[in-house]
Amino acid sequence: MFRNQYDSDVTVWSPQGRLHQVDYAVEAMKQGSATVGIRSNTHAVLVALKRAANELCSHQKKIYELDRHVGVSIAGLLSDGRILARFLQTECSSWRWDYKESVPIQVLNNRMQLKLQANTQHYGRRPFGVGLVIAGYDQKGPHIVKTDPSAETVETYATSIGARSQSARTYLERHLADFSDATADQLIEHALLALRDTLPAEENLTKKNTTIAVVGKGQPFKVIDDNDVQPYLERIGDQPRAVAPVEAEGGDNMQE
Amino acid sequence: MFRNQYDSDVTVWSPQGRLHQVDYAVEAMKQGSATVGIRSNTHAVLVALKRAANELCSHQKKIYELDRHVGVSIAGLLSDGRILARFLQTECSSWRWDYKESVPIQVLNNRMQLKLQANTQHYGRRPFGVGLVIAGYDQKGPHIVKTDPSAETVETYATSIGARSQSARTYLERHLADFSDATADQLIEHALLALRDTLPAEENLTKKNTTIAVVGKGQPFKVIDDNDVQPYLERIGDQPRAVAPVEAEGGDNMQE
Amino acid sequence: MFRNQYDSDVTVWSPQGRLHQVDYAVEAMKQGSATVGIRSNTHAVLVALKRAANELCSHQKKIYELDRHVGVSIAGLLSDGRILARFLQTECSSWRWDYKESVPIQVLNNRMQLKLQANTQHYGRRPFGVGLVIAGYDQKGPHIVKTDPSAETVETYATSIGARSQSARTYLERHLADFSDATADQLIEHALLALRDTLPAEENLTKKNTTIAVVGKGQPFKVIDDNDVQPYLERIGDQPRAVAPVEAEGGDNMQE
Amino acid sequence: MFRNQYDSDVTVWSPQGRLHQVDYAVEAMKQGSATVGIRSNTHAVLVALKRAANELCSHQKKIYELDRHVGVSIAGLLSDGRILARFLQTECSSWRWDYKESVPIQVLNNRMQLKLQANTQHYGRRPFGVGLVIAGYDQKGPHIVKTDPSAETVETYATSIGARSQSARTYLERHLADFSDATADQLIEHALLALRDTLPAEENLTKKNTTIAVVGKGQPFKVIDDNDVQPYLERIGDQPRAVAPVEAEGGDNMQE
Amino acid sequence: MFRNQYDSDVTVWSPQGRLHQVDYAVEAMKQGSATVGIRSNTHAVLVALKRAANELCSHQKKIYELDRHVGVSIAGLLSDGRILARFLQTECSSWRWDYKESVPIQVLNNRMQLKLQANTQHYGRRPFGVGLVIAGYDQKGPHIVKTDPSAETVETYATSIGARSQSARTYLERHLADFSDATADQLIEHALLALRDTLPAEENLTKKNTTIAVVGKGQPFKVIDDNDVQPYLERIGDQPRAVAPVEAEGGDNMQE
Amino acid sequence: MFRNQYDSDVTVWSPQGRLHQVDYAVEAMKQGSATVGIRSNTHAVLVALKRAANELCSHQKKIYELDRHVGVSIAGLLSDGRILARFLQTECSSWRWDYKESVPIQVLNNRMQLKLQANTQHYGRRPFGVGLVIAGYDQKGPHIVKTDPSAETVETYATSIGARSQSARTYLERHLADFSDATADQLIEHALLALRDTLPAEENLTKKNTTIAVVGKGQPFKVIDDNDVQPYLERIGDQPRAVAPVEAEGGDNMQE
Amino acid sequence: MFRNQYDSDVTVWSPQGRLHQVDYAVEAMKQGSATVGIRSNTHAVLVALKRAANELCSHQKKIYELDRHVGVSIAGLLSDGRILARFLQTECSSWRWDYKESVPIQVLNNRMQLKLQANTQHYGRRPFGVGLVIAGYDQKGPHIVKTDPSAETVETYATSIGARSQSARTYLERHLADFSDATADQLIEHALLALRDTLPAEENLTKKNTTIAVVGKGQPFKVIDDNDVQPYLERIGDQPRAVAPVEAEGGDNMQE
Repeated sequence: MFRNQYDSDVTVWSPQGRLHQVDYAVEAMKQGSATVGIRSNTHAVLVALKRAANELCSHQKKIYELDRHVGVSIAGLLSDGRILARFLQTECSSWRWDYKESVPIQVLNNRMQLKLQANTQHYGRRPFGVGLVIAGYDQKGPHIVKTDPSAETVETYATSIGARSQSARTYLERHLADFSDATADQLIEHALLALRDTLPAEENLTKKNTTIAVVGKGQPFKVIDDNDVQPYLERIGDQPRAVAPVEAEGGDNMQE
Repeated sequence: MFRNQYDSDVTVWSPQGRLHQVDYAVEAMKQGSATVGIRSNTHAVLVALKRAANELCSHQKKIYELDRHVGVSIAGLLSDGRILARFLQTECSSWRWDYKESVPIQVLNNRMQLKLQANTQHYGRRPFGVGLVIAGYDQKGPHIVKTDPSAETVETYATSIGARSQSARTYLERHLADFSDATADQLIEHALLALRDTLPAEENLTKKNTTIAVVGKGQPFKVIDDNDVQPYLERIGDQPRAVAPVEAEGGDNMQE
Repeated sequence: MFRNQYDSDVTVWSPQGRLHQVDYAVEAMKQGSATVGIRSNTHAVLVALKRAANELCSHQKKIYELDRHVGVSIAGLLSDGRILARFLQTECSSWRWDYKESVPIQVLNNRMQLKLQANTQHYGRRPFGVGLVIAGYDQKGPHIVKTDPSAETVETYATSIGARSQSARTYLERHLADFSDATADQLIEHALLALRDTLPAEENLTKKNTTIAVVGKGQPFKVIDDNDVQPYLERIGDQPRAVAPVEAEGGDNMQE
Repeated sequence: MFRNQYDSDVTVWSPQGRLHQVDYAVEAMKQGSATVGIRSNTHAVLVALKRAANELCSHQKKIYELDRHVGVSIAGLLSDGRILARFLQTECSSWRWDYKESVPIQVLNNRMQLKLQANTQHYGRRPFGVGLVIAGYDQKGPHIVKTDPSAETVETYATSIGARSQSARTYLERHLADFSDATADQLIEHALLALRDTLPAEENLTKKNTTIAVVGKGQPFKVIDDNDVQPYLERIGDQPRAVAPVEAEGGDNMQE
Repeated sequence: MFRNQYDSDVTVWSPQGRLHQVDYAVEAMKQGSATVGIRSNTHAVLVALKRAANELCSHQKKIYELDRHVGVSIAGLLSDGRILARFLQTECSSWRWDYKESVPIQVLNNRMQLKLQANTQHYGRRPFGVGLVIAGYDQKGPHIVKTDPSAETVETYATSIGARSQSARTYLERHLADFSDATADQLIEHALLALRDTLPAEENLTKKNTTIAVVGKGQPFKVIDDNDVQPYLERIGDQPRAVAPVEAEGGDNMQE
Repeated sequence: MFRNQYDSDVTVWSPQGRLHQVDYAVEAMKQGSATVGIRSNTHAVLVALKRAANELCSHQKKIYELDRHVGVSIAGLLSDGRILARFLQTECSSWRWDYKESVPIQVLNNRMQLKLQANTQHYGRRPFGVGLVIAGYDQKGPHIVKTDPSAETVETYATSIGARSQSARTYLERHLADFSDATADQLIEHALLALRDTLPAEENLTKKNTTIAVVGKGQPFKVIDDNDVQPYLERIGDQPRAVAPVEAEGGDNMQE
Repeated sequence: MFRNQYDSDVTVWSPQGRLHQVDYAVEAMKQGSATVGIRSNTHAVLVALKRAANELCSHQKKIYELDRHVGVSIAGLLSDGRILARFLQTECSSWRWDYKESVPIQVLNNRMQLKLQANTQHYGRRPFGVGLVIAGYDQKGPHIVKTDPSAETVETYATSIGARSQSARTYLERHLADFSDATADQLIEHALLALRDTLPAEENLTKKNTTIAVVGKGQPFKVIDDNDVQPYLERIGDQPRAVAPVEAEGGDNMQE
């Protein structure tokens, strides 16, 4: 695709009515390792693939607890993602201080949306190069919300972002009917199966590279890592993989 | 059309006296999914086409209630539209706080016009990439107001903006004489028929992709979604479509 | 005419001592639909051609009342014009608050001149793309003042700006001697005849596309629209048109 | 003359040590209609040529009274000139308020010089496109001061700026010896004869296009316009013109 | 690899979703002389290679004590590194003042991450051209944290950054299993052996060019230099080097 | 000499370590009409060549009294020079107010140096296009200080800047031994002879174009102009000129 | 070496991880006349070569006393150097005011380092074009510190910067062993011999062009100039020069 001078400034429209800098930031999001979110009528879960630059260092933190009822998984430029997670965490605690209650997920979405949009319209900033999947539970029940560098936030039943996330979305669309009445554990299994589909054929989910989070009715937001992940992996262990993935590159930008 | 360096800065006039950045932002508006607004002597209605990025996520929110007597439908870059809806909502509640009454629609138009114009004249900003159709009811009766990135606001009897909205406007012009004495339900039917004309031949209005709003004499602003849309769709169900639409692309920018 | 890099920044002089951005903003003014102003020894009148983007919407507002003794007609980028009309209206009401009297028209001109000039000398702004014709009546009698994007304001007996306004000026120059002792109605007739000369041969003045305003001795500023315009149109109805206009494009920028 | 990138920014020196933007602003001054200033030992006079864009509007105001003892004539971009005249008028009234006396002309020159210089050294502004001739009378006697966009102010016996002012300066140099002991009326005659030399052969000074001002011992600053100009024109009426002018273009920038 | 205009501004995304300025700052880090960090279950150590511009001057300071429980080693543009070390030291002392206790290492990482990220998103700054390895000991035990110009911070067991650090990482990966139960002295030996592998064949570690730091249970942060380094070097003295390094350029940027 | 993009911004170094904008501002200084300064053990004198744009106006002011013990002569862009003279005069009077004594010349030099340097290092300004020669007398005796756009100030025995000042410097170097014990009048004669050498062969010093200033032991700073210059010119009248000057262009920039 | 667009902005990294503007500022430093600093266990000395633009003016000041225990010698753009010397002097006196004692040299280095680094990272500034050699004596003994435009400061035993300083460094490296126990006079002799090696064959050190400074145990910072330099020159007079220097250009930038 031919591109020109309209693509280097976030405050410049292209003749076709596009903001190319937003499109390019979406590319950064797409290169992050994948994450999946699903909700039933009672719970919302997140699973994410953690990468490690090499053998020596621990795996990247992909899922952040924001408050006792909500957390977020990120894909893309991890340092941008951490800034946003910190922003959301501050919003949660401000609300709790002011109103003595958990922030409604919709409020959190609105705040996030305003913050992201500002970076698409003001000179001298750049759009955040990261996508977020928020999982929360409030008086209206469980929520999964996806947001991306364009500042668009979408309430959703199930979603996946990051490298090769199309494979995960294909899985999710096929099993959409099963989610609403699923138990938390069933949701996690679906999410792991979808996440596994984003892996190249020679890789697999392990207790090292997989992280899980769950929140819902009577269940505060909980992150499951390392050995605690193993039982979930064993449950999906012998199910055949849905599609043969082909792409092999990608992974969050650690700039090494 | 030949374009040159005059088109990349909102504060630069072209030799022909055009602000190209405003023109390009209008392009973003034209790519949004269509919305239609009509008023009679007693009511004003909005209908809009909602898109969903894929099967997994809910449809975009296109119509926002601003106050009990007024709402807005947006077409274009949805994150820009949400910023403006939030701005209008704040204006409504400020007026209500100060004067203990609903803000007159004309006041709302003026505030909107000032906000949009500023982004067409100051360096380091960009015009909003969105068009709005406001439907309200105040002491002077019902109002439909259309505004676009050029900051021009127009009071109108019926209007449509967004992708393939020309087809809808053709419908509206043909039936203009029928609107002034129509009931609210009749207005909604006209609006749905106009909206249906913006769809490609293989698509149709459904209770999922259609949203309706109505306000008027004795009728606070009400948004009609999902199952409540079905009865309206059934009424127009077997009427033949006026024109065979040809364009197939478009839809609000969700940047996916 | 050859143009170069001197024309894209309002703070840059061309080697010939021109500010090209001001010239280009004047082009925007010239594309607005025409307006005409004339004064006698006792009255000042404005007439203007209103355009509508299509059948559905009302015609553009071209004339604004600023105070009980003064109003303004605009040609060019309508959203810029509305900002300036709002500015002038605020100046009028500030003066009335401070001094309990109508603002002298000369004071209003000076304020306008300062505001427009600032946008021709400071980086990061652009000249306003609009011309104004102010009609007022104060202790010194009636006034017609023309201003344009260069910030030059000129007191005048009769003037016309906007698309094909040269035809109107030709009419006005021929009948200049008749204006000083004319009645208000006679001034309006002259103004309408001049305005009609700006129309292409196949168009005509109608009660929909024509707006009239008058102010003078014992006559507060009054805008005449719609049905009230009809009697004036009938009076000039069978007079032959002075010149055969040739240009056919133009009209205020509504960016549709 | 070859010019390059050094000429588009007022804060950039050319390799030859020139500020081209200042040179270009001087071009704007040179295109203004001419003005002449002369002083004797007792009086100072200004005459200026007024232009009108067309038959309909009054002639431009070229000479401004600043205080009862001083005034200014401008040539170049008239809206810039008016800003500066307003600035000088404010300086005059501030001094009168603080010290209960007329501002010395030298003080006025210094203030003007600082204001003009700032626009030749700071990024994001442009030099004023106008030249000024100040005529005043204070405790040191009469003064004629010329200033231009470079911010250089020069005390002078006689001067002329604007279109074809070289012809006027030629006249003034030939009659320099006659000025010091001339009466006010004689000064005006000399100034008019010099001004007439700036006109193309087919034009002449008229009571419409000529404005005169005089200040001096026992004579507050007085502007002479319209019918009051006629007697002065009659006195010089049958004197042959000194040189046959050749240039025909020029006139203050009204951007019409 | 082909690069273009997307790489000269930190606020501009490339079409591939990269921030090239961050990549280039990483290059500056890679040219710094190498540093190595390792931790066991009880201690964390740093070793670094010091360069000297010539015989006359002392070797560069590479390791800074930040507080009694934490220190940092830097690689890259040393003046940038010193700014960051100073920043971290201030954070340590602020925490100690406020809470009368050592700052948790995780808090320090978060502060560092925010500071670095800001320079990757705001116009008019540049990313820091330096990488850091922090070694600390707090209530959760020993920590090694690596950070780089992309603002990504990673908790790690062992790491090396700077020129030819790949050779050191190869050593570390081979001996990873030995670290967790090692004594402080054993950790230092491993670190020195890894560091030695970054040297060209003709160079060796000496008491002049090597600096060591250790912190841990019952051991405040201590820097070991000059003669105190000798015993450690002697212990590794006769062990054969693991790989034959090939690269010969590099060294921290002293801009001489 | 080849020049490139390094020369248009004062904050950009060329690869050769030059600030070209400073060099170009020096060119402006070199085009000013010449000035000469000399000091003995007891006095300091300045002489300067004044230019007039034409016969009508007075000659430029070249020498400014700053305080009773110090003055300055300028060469280059006169409006810049006046700004700096005003700055120095303010420094003198501030010191006198604070300390009830004359400002030491060294203090004045330091203030000047700081002001000039700032314009060589900050974006959005330009170096001053002027050189200064300060002559003063304080407790340490007489001083001549030369400064230029690079902000370098040099204490000197004798100096000359401006157009063809090399010829004057040649004279001064030849007679350097004579200055320390010279009387004030002898210094003035030397300075005039040096200044005369900067003139083209067909020009000469006159009481109109020459200005003299002297300060020293028991001699407050005094400017000598017009008729008072004549006796000094007569004393040097019949001495043959040292060298035959060849250049003919130059003179302070009055931008006419 | 090929250079490109990465070299004109101090906030832009080159793809190789270089800040070219810093490199270019180092070039300015290298063109300054040379300076040498050496320390023993008890003293620190500076010697510097002073240049004069011509016969008329005094030699440049190269060494500044900062406080009674510390001074600095500069090479490069002298006006930049003076700004930095002034900054350091202010730091010294602030410390003395606050703590009633001499500022430790290490503190001074840190302050200097922060000031220089800021100009390498912020848009709209430029790196200082100067190098400094600081000589001081505090509770830890004598210090020689070298700093350059990259903001790197290095504690050193002996150093030389400026034009042809490589020759001086060669001398210093050869005699490094002799410095630690040398007397102050012996240090000065070594420094002068090193400095002499930076001169072209046809030049020599003279009491006019050489300046010396010494500080140490019981010896406040003292600058030795003019006749007081002569005895030191005589002591080194008949020693043969070590190397035959070849370069002939260079000298501090006085921009004449």
